[in-house]
Amino acid sequence: MSFKFEVTATSGRARVGRITTPRGTIETPVFMPVGTRAAVQTLTSHDVTDLGAEIILGNTYHLMLRPGADLVAEMGGLHEFMQWTGHVLTDSGGYQIFSLEPKVDDEGALFKSTYDGSMHKLTPESAVDVQTNLGSDIQMVLDVCPPLPSPDRVILDAMATTHAWAERARSAFLDRPERSDGMRAQFGIVQGGLDRSLREQSAAFLMDIGFEGYGIGGLSVGEKRTEMLDPLRATTDVLPVDQPRYLMGVGDPLSIVEGIANGVDMFDCVLPTRLARHGTVLTTAGRINLEAARYARDPGPVDPDLPESPLAPWSRAYLRHLLKVHEPSVQRLLTLHNIAFLFRLVDEARDAVREGTIDQLVDRVGQVWS
Amino acid sequence: MSFKFEVTATSGRARVGRITTPRGTIETPVFMPVGTRAAVQTLTSHDVTDLGAEIILGNTYHLMLRPGADLVAEMGGLHEFMQWTGHVLTDSGGYQIFSLEPKVDDEGALFKSTYDGSMHKLTPESAVDVQTNLGSDIQMVLDVCPPLPSPDRVILDAMATTHAWAERARSAFLDRPERSDGMRAQFGIVQGGLDRSLREQSAAFLMDIGFEGYGIGGLSVGEKRTEMLDPLRATTDVLPVDQPRYLMGVGDPLSIVEGIANGVDMFDCVLPTRLARHGTVLTTAGRINLEAARYARDPGPVDPDLPESPLAPWSRAYLRHLLKVHEPSVQRLLTLHNIAFLFRLVDEARDAVREGTIDQLVDRVGQVWS
Repeated sequence: MSFKFEVTATSGRARVGRITTPRGTIETPVFMPVGTRAAVQTLTSHDVTDLGAEIILGNTYHLMLRPGADLVAEMGGLHEFMQWTGHVLTDSGGYQIFSLEPKVDDEGALFKSTYDGSMHKLTPESAVDVQTNLGSDIQMVLDVCPPLPSPDRVILDAMATTHAWAERARSAFLDRPERSDGMRAQFGIVQGGLDRSLREQSAAFLMDIGFEGYGIGGLSVGEKRTEMLDPLRATTDVLPVDQPRYLMGVGDPLSIVEGIANGVDMFDCVLPTRLARHGTVLTTAGRINLEAARYARDPGPVDPDLPESPLAPWSRAYLRHLLKVHEPSVQRLLTLHNIAFLFRLVDEARDAVREGTIDQLVDRVGQVWS
Repeated sequence: MSFKFEVTATSGRARVGRITTPRGTIETPVFMPVGTRAAVQTLTSHDVTDLGAEIILGNTYHLMLRPGADLVAEMGGLHEFMQWTGHVLTDSGGYQIFSLEPKVDDEGALFKSTYDGSMHKLTPESAVDVQTNLGSDIQMVLDVCPPLPSPDRVILDAMATTHAWAERARSAFLDRPERSDGMRAQFGIVQGGLDRSLREQSAAFLMDIGFEGYGIGGLSVGEKRTEMLDPLRATTDVLPVDQPRYLMGVGDPLSIVEGIANGVDMFDCVLPTRLARHGTVLTTAGRINLEAARYARDPGPVDPDLPESPLAPWSRAYLRHLLKVHEPSVQRLLTLHNIAFLFRLVDEARDAVREGTIDQLVDRVGQVWS
């Protein structure tokens, strides 16, 4: 396998590292912008490159329905389709599908398309096929992700199904050479709710199967942020030190630095794009909503402490004006800024890990963002 | 006055030239993208710079209502507000206001805001004040622009009011030093419907007042495209050869090259942005709507004959996908392309004028666009 991960610095549970693939490198910890429908919302792949991104997410559920994985394959895969030279990680579609209350049996999940109401089935094997067609660099196995809180029975069932499906997904991935020719990696997904012992069991089960890396799923799905840390630590304490760990769907500033402090290497979240749609920007001083009347005549930049922001040339007054008259360009500018903000935060966290000051960074970020 | 215009080549009625202002130069003929609300829709000022634009339009009517000309002035004027280093021409607001059926008397026009229903009055003098506050490089006088066809009486009345208002607007412009300190120019607007003789009278009247340049208004407002040419020629045959002529609101490819062949120097139109909103692109082979099913698996570029297009990296299949799933990024990409297409057309027209082949260009464009 030519998918490699090396840890170059550690501090407590935290680590700095580098993923190397035939496509290039990914410095970790890393925040991955979400490109649900083969585009990060409001941005082109060139915008994403200019931000310095090395990896983005694609969404199996959405892409299998529109435009269809076969069409993407015919167009040369997601990279060629999007004209994106960085890495792509595709989630399995499980998270989206389980929000649609699918019919689940041992074989897989039957669900209704949000686009046209048509019925579709996703199995552990077909999720691998779809992701192979999409041509992603890192595939995620199909898992069952229950919301929190859920009854113990639901958590245990979800974990059991996730484990059985993980074995089948790994077989399917290794079964055909084009799925595992060294160009691609597959990550298992740890479940187990908030219970330390279940988290440890789940991590151990997946490690026995053996993947190139491990997703930590089923967190940030309804529980308090502080409740996440204990099961997270239980998981990262068990997972292999020499493989990447991906905390799925988490991307608020404090959870990112707390995740890093607790041994997480990869994050994704729709937060920067979703906030931008509502006129909200992440700044060193906290969130601000630029539609507020107090910015109407504010000549200052959005975040004086982030001079490298793509928003830096424009005043708060101008951006507020664009928001108030619904100029579409402002959504792109705010998205660029919010992603740049999270990239800078992750940069700072890498430095902090190298310098042994990650706990101080968590404290500092917590003062603004808790 | 440091507003200068020089003609560097002619061919029949057509000319190539250069406007020079304290801010820089504008090569003519020129197509001016429309930045109605202090932004070209879906684009940033940096995007517009990257396209090679030297001048854009701002809209007096919209900007006086949102965010307000006083606010723009407080923020340093439109250039500083938008962070745009090129030129800005502001229309007077007349065209928008007269589509709202205002109450017009000799003094000016009383109209209702489309934003909140509040009542506002615009006079020839206040239109100058507003544009001075906006800080545009070229102001347009407030005119009365009737739709076509209109009864003769309406055309004559509109012309008479336009002339009276032009005299007052010029006085107002020259009255206060900051309005005419050489940083700014003011254009009169020729009216007169489709009647050659009225057009000649109107042009002569405005030339007697004396402006830095002349708008040709009241065309492309409901008449057939071919009906426009005769009154257009009547106007350009009278207007000074050493001053710029601006055919207002016209921007379809054939009208641009026909306008150039008939002595027009400046054009503006919302066409490239409006078409983009509907998934339509201007190409060397004509208009195409990228939402059509036949492009679903088309790996080719939108316009193989426009390799410099900002759209060139992406396939028709990808752009169609973005349109079908309503990804906002595609509106920006299509707008960039459509403006690049018109800029290239105007470049070709300049070369054709220099080489004496503008009539052949009109024929060639007419074969695709008539």
